[in-house]
Amino acid sequence: MPEAGAPEPIARLIQEFSKLPGIGPKSAQRLAYHVLKAPEDDARALAQALADVKERVVLCETCFYITVSDPCALCDEEQRDPTLVCVVEQPLDVLVVERTGGFRGLYHVLHGSLNPIDGVGPEQLRIQELLRRVEAGQVVEVIMATNPSLEGEATSMYVQRLLQPLGIRVTRLARGLPSGADIEYMDDLTLSRALEGRQEL
Amino acid sequence: MPEAGAPEPIARLIQEFSKLPGIGPKSAQRLAYHVLKAPEDDARALAQALADVKERVVLCETCFYITVSDPCALCDEEQRDPTLVCVVEQPLDVLVVERTGGFRGLYHVLHGSLNPIDGVGPEQLRIQELLRRVEAGQVVEVIMATNPSLEGEATSMYVQRLLQPLGIRVTRLARGLPSGADIEYMDDLTLSRALEGRQEL
Repeated sequence: MPEAGAPEPIARLIQEFSKLPGIGPKSAQRLAYHVLKAPEDDARALAQALADVKERVVLCETCFYITVSDPCALCDEEQRDPTLVCVVEQPLDVLVVERTGGFRGLYHVLHGSLNPIDGVGPEQLRIQELLRRVEAGQVVEVIMATNPSLEGEATSMYVQRLLQPLGIRVTRLARGLPSGADIEYMDDLTLSRALEGRQEL
Repeated sequence: MPEAGAPEPIARLIQEFSKLPGIGPKSAQRLAYHVLKAPEDDARALAQALADVKERVVLCETCFYITVSDPCALCDEEQRDPTLVCVVEQPLDVLVVERTGGFRGLYHVLHGSLNPIDGVGPEQLRIQELLRRVEAGQVVEVIMATNPSLEGEATSMYVQRLLQPLGIRVTRLARGLPSGADIEYMDDLTLSRALEGRQEL
């Protein structure tokens, strides 16, 4: 272990870096020595950015997207359609949907998906808050944009069952072939779902 | 660019992370969202470690290894042989030589290698300081442990030419087959150097 021999502040920085996801001991070492050689301002900027994220970023009390001011910029935008709510698992997913430029409704971030093995039940997600939003009366359609994974699908089904009695439309993103795909190399599940969801030409 | 849409502190943290070597935009984004979700103490510990490295780590005035106290722990160790100095390019190289357990002399860190293309000349390296150490009289042998690269070799040759008039022994690490290597897959240069440096069985 080379970090055992490094001076204490370096060894500690290596240790802190290696706690980050995808950063192994070797990368952590390389990053720490980079910081050591880099201008002091760079290290200070990174340290400040870390502190700022923890101090200034909060969750929007309406949609639970990450924001520096509550309500968030998305909820605050008047041109958006408040009758349409897109439900996503993670804050990052909001940006991905926004990038398409094809959605002008509001969002609701669940902050995860149902995963009993990892101890994530409905009470760990922002599901009750979504129900209250819908019960407030303005929402006409909820689009479930959870991941097409086991957990994402289970979450969508669970939410859909709760929303159905409220008499609104609950939809989910289409399943099918990703654009640019080659049918020859498509997995069975994707292909069978594309078949099921076939559309008129 | 998804970071364009993220709240400012997140976008800035993504930007700062992506300045680090080997961290692309995608990794930077993943790291920033990890920090957002991680306990505040973890982010604080990393920020503090960054600050500490820049504030507390200095170079040893004798060997130019990184240290929190001058002279460094290596120069300060009485059992070490002060007649033997191992010259390396980077602070990290000291740890690598130390790990072998086979060297009990002192070190001298050049902080780079001669590289005219990148504007690194002798005055950017700790070469004059090495000369003064040798001129002080106690050193008997200098072991050049620069990298077996074009720049490392050039640096060794340069230093050797400066040290020769002082009448000390200047050696360098052996060139040859790395242990566990397969001769079939060895490159020509390594093999021809292993031939040149062949030893009696």
